[in-house]
Amino acid sequence: MSDVKKVVLAYSGGLDTSVIVKWLQEEYQCEVVTFTADLGQGEEVEPARAKAQALGVKEIFIEDLREEFVRDFVFPMFRANTIYEGEYLLGTSIARPLIAKRLIEIANETGADAIAHGATGKGNDQVRFELGAYALKPGVSVIAPWREWDLTSRETLMNYCEEHKIPVDFSTKKKKSPYSMDANLLHISYEGDQLEDPWIESEEDMWRWSVAPEQAPDTPTYIEIEYKHGDPVAINGEEMSPATILETLNKIGGENGIGRIDIVENRFVGMKARGCYETPGGTIMLRAHRAMESITLDREAMHLKDEIMPRYAKVIYNGFWWSEERRMLQALIDASQEFVSGTVRLKLYKGNIEVVGRKSPYSLFDSSVATFEDDAGAYDQKDAAGFIKLNALRMRIAAQKGRTFLDRD
Amino acid sequence: MSDVKKVVLAYSGGLDTSVIVKWLQEEYQCEVVTFTADLGQGEEVEPARAKAQALGVKEIFIEDLREEFVRDFVFPMFRANTIYEGEYLLGTSIARPLIAKRLIEIANETGADAIAHGATGKGNDQVRFELGAYALKPGVSVIAPWREWDLTSRETLMNYCEEHKIPVDFSTKKKKSPYSMDANLLHISYEGDQLEDPWIESEEDMWRWSVAPEQAPDTPTYIEIEYKHGDPVAINGEEMSPATILETLNKIGGENGIGRIDIVENRFVGMKARGCYETPGGTIMLRAHRAMESITLDREAMHLKDEIMPRYAKVIYNGFWWSEERRMLQALIDASQEFVSGTVRLKLYKGNIEVVGRKSPYSLFDSSVATFEDDAGAYDQKDAAGFIKLNALRMRIAAQKGRTFLDRD
Amino acid sequence: MSDVKKVVLAYSGGLDTSVIVKWLQEEYQCEVVTFTADLGQGEEVEPARAKAQALGVKEIFIEDLREEFVRDFVFPMFRANTIYEGEYLLGTSIARPLIAKRLIEIANETGADAIAHGATGKGNDQVRFELGAYALKPGVSVIAPWREWDLTSRETLMNYCEEHKIPVDFSTKKKKSPYSMDANLLHISYEGDQLEDPWIESEEDMWRWSVAPEQAPDTPTYIEIEYKHGDPVAINGEEMSPATILETLNKIGGENGIGRIDIVENRFVGMKARGCYETPGGTIMLRAHRAMESITLDREAMHLKDEIMPRYAKVIYNGFWWSEERRMLQALIDASQEFVSGTVRLKLYKGNIEVVGRKSPYSLFDSSVATFEDDAGAYDQKDAAGFIKLNALRMRIAAQKGRTFLDRD
Amino acid sequence: MSDVKKVVLAYSGGLDTSVIVKWLQEEYQCEVVTFTADLGQGEEVEPARAKAQALGVKEIFIEDLREEFVRDFVFPMFRANTIYEGEYLLGTSIARPLIAKRLIEIANETGADAIAHGATGKGNDQVRFELGAYALKPGVSVIAPWREWDLTSRETLMNYCEEHKIPVDFSTKKKKSPYSMDANLLHISYEGDQLEDPWIESEEDMWRWSVAPEQAPDTPTYIEIEYKHGDPVAINGEEMSPATILETLNKIGGENGIGRIDIVENRFVGMKARGCYETPGGTIMLRAHRAMESITLDREAMHLKDEIMPRYAKVIYNGFWWSEERRMLQALIDASQEFVSGTVRLKLYKGNIEVVGRKSPYSLFDSSVATFEDDAGAYDQKDAAGFIKLNALRMRIAAQKGRTFLDRD
Repeated sequence: MSDVKKVVLAYSGGLDTSVIVKWLQEEYQCEVVTFTADLGQGEEVEPARAKAQALGVKEIFIEDLREEFVRDFVFPMFRANTIYEGEYLLGTSIARPLIAKRLIEIANETGADAIAHGATGKGNDQVRFELGAYALKPGVSVIAPWREWDLTSRETLMNYCEEHKIPVDFSTKKKKSPYSMDANLLHISYEGDQLEDPWIESEEDMWRWSVAPEQAPDTPTYIEIEYKHGDPVAINGEEMSPATILETLNKIGGENGIGRIDIVENRFVGMKARGCYETPGGTIMLRAHRAMESITLDREAMHLKDEIMPRYAKVIYNGFWWSEERRMLQALIDASQEFVSGTVRLKLYKGNIEVVGRKSPYSLFDSSVATFEDDAGAYDQKDAAGFIKLNALRMRIAAQKGRTFLDRD
Repeated sequence: MSDVKKVVLAYSGGLDTSVIVKWLQEEYQCEVVTFTADLGQGEEVEPARAKAQALGVKEIFIEDLREEFVRDFVFPMFRANTIYEGEYLLGTSIARPLIAKRLIEIANETGADAIAHGATGKGNDQVRFELGAYALKPGVSVIAPWREWDLTSRETLMNYCEEHKIPVDFSTKKKKSPYSMDANLLHISYEGDQLEDPWIESEEDMWRWSVAPEQAPDTPTYIEIEYKHGDPVAINGEEMSPATILETLNKIGGENGIGRIDIVENRFVGMKARGCYETPGGTIMLRAHRAMESITLDREAMHLKDEIMPRYAKVIYNGFWWSEERRMLQALIDASQEFVSGTVRLKLYKGNIEVVGRKSPYSLFDSSVATFEDDAGAYDQKDAAGFIKLNALRMRIAAQKGRTFLDRD
Repeated sequence: MSDVKKVVLAYSGGLDTSVIVKWLQEEYQCEVVTFTADLGQGEEVEPARAKAQALGVKEIFIEDLREEFVRDFVFPMFRANTIYEGEYLLGTSIARPLIAKRLIEIANETGADAIAHGATGKGNDQVRFELGAYALKPGVSVIAPWREWDLTSRETLMNYCEEHKIPVDFSTKKKKSPYSMDANLLHISYEGDQLEDPWIESEEDMWRWSVAPEQAPDTPTYIEIEYKHGDPVAINGEEMSPATILETLNKIGGENGIGRIDIVENRFVGMKARGCYETPGGTIMLRAHRAMESITLDREAMHLKDEIMPRYAKVIYNGFWWSEERRMLQALIDASQEFVSGTVRLKLYKGNIEVVGRKSPYSLFDSSVATFEDDAGAYDQKDAAGFIKLNALRMRIAAQKGRTFLDRD
Repeated sequence: MSDVKKVVLAYSGGLDTSVIVKWLQEEYQCEVVTFTADLGQGEEVEPARAKAQALGVKEIFIEDLREEFVRDFVFPMFRANTIYEGEYLLGTSIARPLIAKRLIEIANETGADAIAHGATGKGNDQVRFELGAYALKPGVSVIAPWREWDLTSRETLMNYCEEHKIPVDFSTKKKKSPYSMDANLLHISYEGDQLEDPWIESEEDMWRWSVAPEQAPDTPTYIEIEYKHGDPVAINGEEMSPATILETLNKIGGENGIGRIDIVENRFVGMKARGCYETPGGTIMLRAHRAMESITLDREAMHLKDEIMPRYAKVIYNGFWWSEERRMLQALIDASQEFVSGTVRLKLYKGNIEVVGRKSPYSLFDSSVATFEDDAGAYDQKDAAGFIKLNALRMRIAAQKGRTFLDRD
């Protein structure tokens, strides 16, 4: 423990991580470097500088990572139509590997031998931070105060602040909420408090990024999203950077009551937990990307992606972004996106997303093949008989040999 | 061709299959047995009797298969949270194996040596009917008039009717629609006409089973669905038969604007096709079943199901219900459902389904493990450090040996 | 630690576990119950009774589990043609869940609140024992002395024996070997010592169950194995119990130099380890079962099994036998074995297993379909053209739309 | 039919394809271009020129494709440790896409509008040729004489030769064999004749590329194979081209009785067929590559490859080499091979391949982590307790809630 000389802390500027700064300085007698990132969580990051300085921190890193976050993490993930357990769009999971990477890069830059974070010992985030850190710098030490200290109640934490003269008037919105929250450009999440009873409906007050469908406009909003090689590049004809795309979709989606879910999920550490999530832009992107693929992707390419997706989602959820298996899966996914370019038209209305149009210069949809009218020769209906006969052959032989389904369960 | 003595025809009572009756009698000089099933398509089946008699059919089978359909086909499929290509709930696909089975059973009963159906040579349904038939009766002959005859336009068909004195005043709703439709208790589908351009939005007039979200009530509807071993058994505390469950959910869902999709899908025969589907009850069941599983299913059981699902969906979509692989997959799925019992509470509002509660005597959710409060001993946060360390070990060794992600792509 | 009142120890009768008995009595001040099983490791188990008595143990369980082991663990696993990482037949892995189960049953019977084992803190066995124990009795305490004590060198261990008057003349063969070994009816394994350098060839002296191919007879041995529902039931026409089948195949295989492998494998705990294994009977069973399936199993059933197998192998290797996912996978596998009955003929010669014949009343092999002679009508070669055309359709459309492989990498 | 102007024929120079030249000229009244490739089948290809000329062919392509075959088809396939149905190394399957590609390239070059091949209507090869052709040139016509003509017996074929003055003294070895054979640098295959009874052992006379294990030398042969990025590049320290590597391994393997299998496999067209294969070099490469990976590949990378492999094998076996799904799978596989470099040492003896050594500058094997001696700190055995506890958590919770395996089947 006493070996740590310098530690890079993922510092939000909030109360908890401010206590951690002090605690690290005292318990580990080590220098603390703070790292605060703007990932689109919707709060100013610059104020963290003064707070860190007040705590005696000399090396302070404050960075706007929004474009890198969306371009190198969110978009690659959405190429796979990634969903965890049928519902969750991995909003928290996908931000962690970027933070882990920057923590390690800063450690390398500042000569730190440890990193620290404010995640608890029961959640997935500790795993995601630490797996990333170990993968990128195998000899690093990791300090997870919540697994070590005894400041585990609000009361003991406040006493610690008083003793150590840490100002507690960090009056952010977060403080007033009874929920444990996490936000970035992709989503905001809520856990804890009354959500702990999965039979109780969430209260309307909890939600922050979207209006309820009931409060959304009475007329639909139509938008067109343009894709290039699997990534969205323009909205309603206007080209935008990755982060701006997502910000714009968050705004439009939130106004139309889109992207709320309320689920019970399985954590990597072994227990079930209830979480509520708002992912307005991501929810739109998921539908739009699928629609884009529906006319541009080969059938077997799509089915292969669909079969591999749950595994890819699990890899990300469990924190293995910086792993060989993630790289390999990404290679497979990316190899499919060359022609996923074109435009999708969506109707947004009170929580609903309807796909109402898709077009592409690379469209594989060919109504002259698919329709019921007379053929121009591309498709000979008589081929179907042979196709069916040979597909049935193994089953016919089995049935001829006496194997039947009629008498079996 | 001339070998066929007696053929069982899947007979809807509509114009096309009436023409087929006559055409089979003439071309094949064989006796025709008709089979008409009520699968919940929303039209009377009894009128088919008089029509068949008028065409000289002597053996006429008219059956209500709704309960068998939902109990033995729809429910087993929903146990897997089955979706084809991320969107399609397989409403048409799942009805075909039951029809194939009854065609073959009736062929065995009546001594027929062939079956016939009215599906075209470009679609999936021909495959589904015929794979089922061959699997259940390997020596059966299959007649698919649409792949053989030259009555391929509305005009030639009408001429044939006139020549053969087939009454064309079958004035069902279907006749007036420009769309090719298929319906059963699980869904109604629309293809063709202006849908052939995937950039054009469907017209509101097309939809039949649901109101548009815009037309749905301004106040939400709350319902509770009770599950036993993975199947719904009661709604709002009232026990119902499988078919009644689905009928009830269709009604509630349709009133609330739930269950419409508009997709481009990949057919087994090789082309892409646009389809619009209304699946009000099925859409509700999918969300409800997932929510029920979310508190009752083991994590790895759920993930295994999720990974296997796209393959199971493909097996059904492609028409391989009566196959060894479907039986094997079903065995895996069913083995997971023993404790999927309890109640799910849903809020339905203008096209939205929100899960607002779930409870079960077998719930694996345990807030005393999941919450952030002090532990009662079930979970020691310090275990997490070891858990992470060993999960990271292979990555740390690789990084120590010089493999890093920081310098790679 | 002091809470444990009574512990059931997996006791081999060897030196290490004898030390553990004493250590548990001293450190935990608890009563020790010993459990010694004959799993076919080739050593007498009865002598363990006197040794345990000498150590003051009052409740001593000595059991012959060979039939249960082969019938309920080995055979189900072989139905899946299970191999870990392309080479390893899971000889050690498959024995652990049975031991775990008996430890827990004995704990329940004797009122013990803990179990203990002699596996080290670096291997897979600790995981397999403990996952099984926790799954079967969630409140059980687990004591793994090798993770706790400081007797980690041969010297300290010997000193402990001297101090505590534990007789060290347990002169079993194992003691004289420089290798860490484990044996049961399925295999014997070797680890450690000079195997730690993966570039060094194993020495001939190490191997115990088989002759080297060079020393095997110069004439081949032919055997016939009869299968019922996926399990072997007779050898050369003689019906045998499961354990006798495996014992017999071990003998025949060992005499013919069959079943040695030398691999580097990936442990669940994160590192690579070199292991040498002799699995004479198992190696024969794997080939024989595949051959039996080759004529009796449907193609897609086989392919589904093949795709799921690596996952099933991993589940067993990692110690999750007593899990929902293993039960689900087993259900899928077992559902395929109904017709895997018949006889396989093998030629064994100096390490080689050649399949030279297979027959079955349920054979799906039909030379009249497969041969190149004129057809009797079961297969119309012209169907193949349609089959190919529709399988090619998606690729033809893509190529028509300008996507080609000729110019791409 | 009459539309074809010029056709490129895959021409072996043998009797059957010579008849096809004549038949195409007569039936289709079209010009025939011949393409003969040296893929290492062990027969001179140059004599095909004179034969084609004698048949009036003006455009004759004779090419040595051995290096391209091994480098771009065999080696990429072996990176995945590809095996079909647990036994078959895909020797025939992997040659077809190269032939298809050259047929199409020659068609493009010579202005031909069709391709033709001599594969029968019951096998896989027709599918592989034609899927490749359609994928690479969607408008191409395909002529498969064996599916069309009536020269289906040896007698009718001979009559045709006599009528058309085709010399039948093509006295190749093949002619004298009762088996249908196919050969290239990767393997030689045998089908038909007495192999049609799967209970009858193959006769020793049939095999051509390897001695029987009984006839192999009494002393073992040791070899070292060096790998770079997943491909073998040198044998016993001597660098060689891809084709030379495989030729060399075929020679060494064949002399040591290595690489024979006798299987019943499932064809894509629906029936089971018996095949015997000799793959001496390929069998060695499979073992060697796995051994190379065993010390250089990350665990999860290996497991992912293992799980995806059966699907990749099926894609190749079924003829979908030139497909999106193959490209995607290849991208995943290739992404894993960056560090699969080093040396494997093998002992070959009378049909056996033993891995006796593996080393690599990128080895992930670290005996200081894996061994049982005291630790240097890389691995803390106490971490294992936490690792196991959290892995067990979901199962413990389930058991606490009353779910047990002890009472269940």
